[in-house]
Amino acid sequence: MTDALRYHVDGDLVPADEASVSVRDRGFRYGDAGFETMRAYGGTVFRWDAHVERLFDTLEALGMPAEDLGLSAIDLRARVRDTLAANDLGDAYVRLSVTRGVDAGFAPPAAADTDPTVVVVVKPLARGGRADRGGKPGWDEPATVQTVKTRRIPDRSLPSDAKTHNYLNNVLARIETRVTDADAALMLDADGAVAECATANVFFVADDAIRTPSLDGPVLPGVTRAEVLDVAAGEGFPVEEGTYAPDDVRRADEAFLTSSVREIRPVATVDGVEIGGGPVTSLLSRLYADRVERECYGDVEGERERGGDGTDREGEDPAAD
Amino acid sequence: MTDALRYHVDGDLVPADEASVSVRDRGFRYGDAGFETMRAYGGTVFRWDAHVERLFDTLEALGMPAEDLGLSAIDLRARVRDTLAANDLGDAYVRLSVTRGVDAGFAPPAAADTDPTVVVVVKPLARGGRADRGGKPGWDEPATVQTVKTRRIPDRSLPSDAKTHNYLNNVLARIETRVTDADAALMLDADGAVAECATANVFFVADDAIRTPSLDGPVLPGVTRAEVLDVAAGEGFPVEEGTYAPDDVRRADEAFLTSSVREIRPVATVDGVEIGGGPVTSLLSRLYADRVERECYGDVEGERERGGDGTDREGEDPAAD
Repeated sequence: MTDALRYHVDGDLVPADEASVSVRDRGFRYGDAGFETMRAYGGTVFRWDAHVERLFDTLEALGMPAEDLGLSAIDLRARVRDTLAANDLGDAYVRLSVTRGVDAGFAPPAAADTDPTVVVVVKPLARGGRADRGGKPGWDEPATVQTVKTRRIPDRSLPSDAKTHNYLNNVLARIETRVTDADAALMLDADGAVAECATANVFFVADDAIRTPSLDGPVLPGVTRAEVLDVAAGEGFPVEEGTYAPDDVRRADEAFLTSSVREIRPVATVDGVEIGGGPVTSLLSRLYADRVERECYGDVEGERERGGDGTDREGEDPAAD
Repeated sequence: MTDALRYHVDGDLVPADEASVSVRDRGFRYGDAGFETMRAYGGTVFRWDAHVERLFDTLEALGMPAEDLGLSAIDLRARVRDTLAANDLGDAYVRLSVTRGVDAGFAPPAAADTDPTVVVVVKPLARGGRADRGGKPGWDEPATVQTVKTRRIPDRSLPSDAKTHNYLNNVLARIETRVTDADAALMLDADGAVAECATANVFFVADDAIRTPSLDGPVLPGVTRAEVLDVAAGEGFPVEEGTYAPDDVRRADEAFLTSSVREIRPVATVDGVEIGGGPVTSLLSRLYADRVERECYGDVEGERERGGDGTDREGEDPAAD
């Protein structure tokens, strides 16, 4: 299926199996690039504004503000739309990357002299939104979570609000879970407090509040994380962003992971301790699906394009939104 | 000049401007790759054994031992040799990368099921070895060093003995030096002790000993670092691998940086404080050049191929050896 797709690379739509970057591109040489993973529902990228804002924050943190690169949100949005259209995809996974361009020596040029490489990769995803309208959640099975030894990189080494192609910290964490066959790696900060999973933010319900690690720690400001906090606030749920020990999660009443692709995924177990979803997780998931339904598919059932209905989701867990 | 070169990509020699990797290669998506930067003198890669050993250590740290990938030192050496020969290069910069191959989902496959991507990039460098035989050192000017705020990534987050395409920590450090126009970034560990420069190990001479941060800290085990320690031991110089504050370097009698490409580069200033090379730095440089001369160009003057004599070194500072 991938072979029939077309990706957007440096301004052109090209067949997926020919889509490439120079081996001298800094995105390859140094992972010197920012990216976003998003989901399109019925042709609309959910929370595009939040994603592009975070991408611009990332580029700023990397010393190459989008403005200086000559990249606008409108331009990037057009590339994403063109890619979805070229593949006739409505329901899709979308990965947008901006690199510092071809290397001309380790010391980066001034941002204004940088010729970035922009890449859009897409693939079909099952329709999202409400189950009663044919939608499926972004996950197949609840997560089995394992606390790993690999610690999140401290902010003083790499800013955690920058989402970059330097993803080995997360990859090494995920590799650790092979031992127990868990499918999500719970990472702690340098002090042993819960930070996030390798490709998702983590939430849990305890003492009648919804809790998630605060962004004061080395935690990616997930777009779905922010959405869930907003949904919860709208419902008047007590919410606490704090500092938590792994045991707090293990003893929780409910727990779930959030990411753009997998949305709100219940946690079955943490380190073998059964937790599971529950009424709060279910309600939040329903409200999230309602937002997707309302903002991407339109209110009126049946009046929308369904777009691609592929289900190529297996194995893809491409970074906490 | 680059355009006329040929690189080795995934088993084939290809023109440099067509040398590319898939946008789905994990080396691009996640910086999920190990690499080595080396120097060929008269067609011989100096300390090849040490470089390939470290590359294999890196791959092991990334959970994909070379053996499981089906890669041998002999195979990799052949690719490097073929690339040098195809470009008629004797004196050259060589960068060898091994990625985890094309992505099929965030969780990496078992090493045995991994199809790595191997890339060799070369370019001409001026002849090395002894000045009286036409050689030039790897640097043009002594280094101006600035202590930066970006801290080295702790070992618990990414093992410092793995040399990977996750190089943003170093890139961000280098960007910080723009303020003072320094050309080397001195990085500290989480506790504020000196670790290394963004693309070189650091040495200094104080209290009649040659000193360098110990590998107990987040310090790359540089191949040139090891060579210098060996040269120093051979001469009976007192050497200490220890834990040092930035002030120890600023107050040093001499200081120098080591990397495969720039070899032994004197430090002119640290944070504006003048240091400079000196008799120890000069002697070590001469002894290093002697080793290069003896092992790569042969003992007898004039009986060797000089190879390419390009001087494309400017701006290239491609990672502490």
